[in-house]
Amino acid sequence: MYRAIEQRRDVRAFRSDPLSEATLQRILDAAHHAPSVGFMQPWNFIVVRDPATKTRVQTVFARENERAAAQFEGERGRLYRSLKLEGIVEAPVNLCVTCDRTRSGPNVLGRNTIIDTDLYSTCCAIQNLWLAARAEGVGVGWVSILRNEDLREILGIPQHIVPVAYLCVGYPHQFFEEPELQRRGWADRLPLDALLYHERWGERPTVGAA
Amino acid sequence: MYRAIEQRRDVRAFRSDPLSEATLQRILDAAHHAPSVGFMQPWNFIVVRDPATKTRVQTVFARENERAAAQFEGERGRLYRSLKLEGIVEAPVNLCVTCDRTRSGPNVLGRNTIIDTDLYSTCCAIQNLWLAARAEGVGVGWVSILRNEDLREILGIPQHIVPVAYLCVGYPHQFFEEPELQRRGWADRLPLDALLYHERWGERPTVGAA
Repeated sequence: MYRAIEQRRDVRAFRSDPLSEATLQRILDAAHHAPSVGFMQPWNFIVVRDPATKTRVQTVFARENERAAAQFEGERGRLYRSLKLEGIVEAPVNLCVTCDRTRSGPNVLGRNTIIDTDLYSTCCAIQNLWLAARAEGVGVGWVSILRNEDLREILGIPQHIVPVAYLCVGYPHQFFEEPELQRRGWADRLPLDALLYHERWGERPTVGAA
Repeated sequence: MYRAIEQRRDVRAFRSDPLSEATLQRILDAAHHAPSVGFMQPWNFIVVRDPATKTRVQTVFARENERAAAQFEGERGRLYRSLKLEGIVEAPVNLCVTCDRTRSGPNVLGRNTIIDTDLYSTCCAIQNLWLAARAEGVGVGWVSILRNEDLREILGIPQHIVPVAYLCVGYPHQFFEEPELQRRGWADRLPLDALLYHERWGERPTVGAA
């Protein structure tokens, strides 16, 4: 478990080897066993293999990524443009994971105060999928540089359904030892201790305390 | 990996056995190894052990849960009221997992079109934590029947920080074979096939196709 968690990567370079239906089913079943608020199971999975569809999504990515690159100047802009941020077309399978905000009716147990818990549940499903894939030697890359309105149009997704993630899935050329953005000098892993508070926000543990 | 995914439960009944610092650190480190948009690592973890704090949170839960119960009538309302939905006070550790939406500045790689990807990353961290805990034999229960404004006040959380999850953590009396809400007849697990579409929303695979 810990090995899969530590060695999971956001994969952007895929081999062309196909993904078997059995493997894909196991990974999707892992997603489906995620926790969900009120056992709402608000997720759907659209499995995309059609190269024409992938190409349309890749075109949206390319447009939005060009806009995004313009936010970073100088050396940072050059580094940004040198990063490979998606493997949409080369991955044998793309998965759109969605959240149906209306599933199980207007009153969902546990979702009366924090409405976004259905989206949160869907993210738990995505992380289950990602870890199961890693255990299978399968790479997953989350492409977030897309617009949901474009995904709705390309994939025929109704307005009340939120596309939460667009994932590229397939066998990677390799799993890097470090996250790509760390390896390439974009950002470092923060020390865990700096993120921990005790009893209240901003409070550090007393020296010598348990 | 698959065993942990299938046997993970939302736990609401805890033994009083303490959780060792070493175990807690391993579980938090698993959370910290989640994927995050632009390697933003937007999470913090507030570790709560103070009984007075837990009691304040439990009071908020009790108030909001009474409101929630009123949404369900007749037999459904009676079933709702019979469910134990939290173990805030009895769990040795409570964890508030938050998302700092300003971390790493205004421009985050990969977060230009879908702003909530920082919240999504935080949920991936929560699921890592949940699965690592399960592998350790430790139970986790997500209490969503709370108001974020109350959590901010009780825990001193600034306005720009979103409390994403309030978790009860400790050794459970048992891990049930089925989710509690299924076991008690509140909801059933949906068949995975009904949640899968091929190529476009609403499209089922053709019979005989791969």
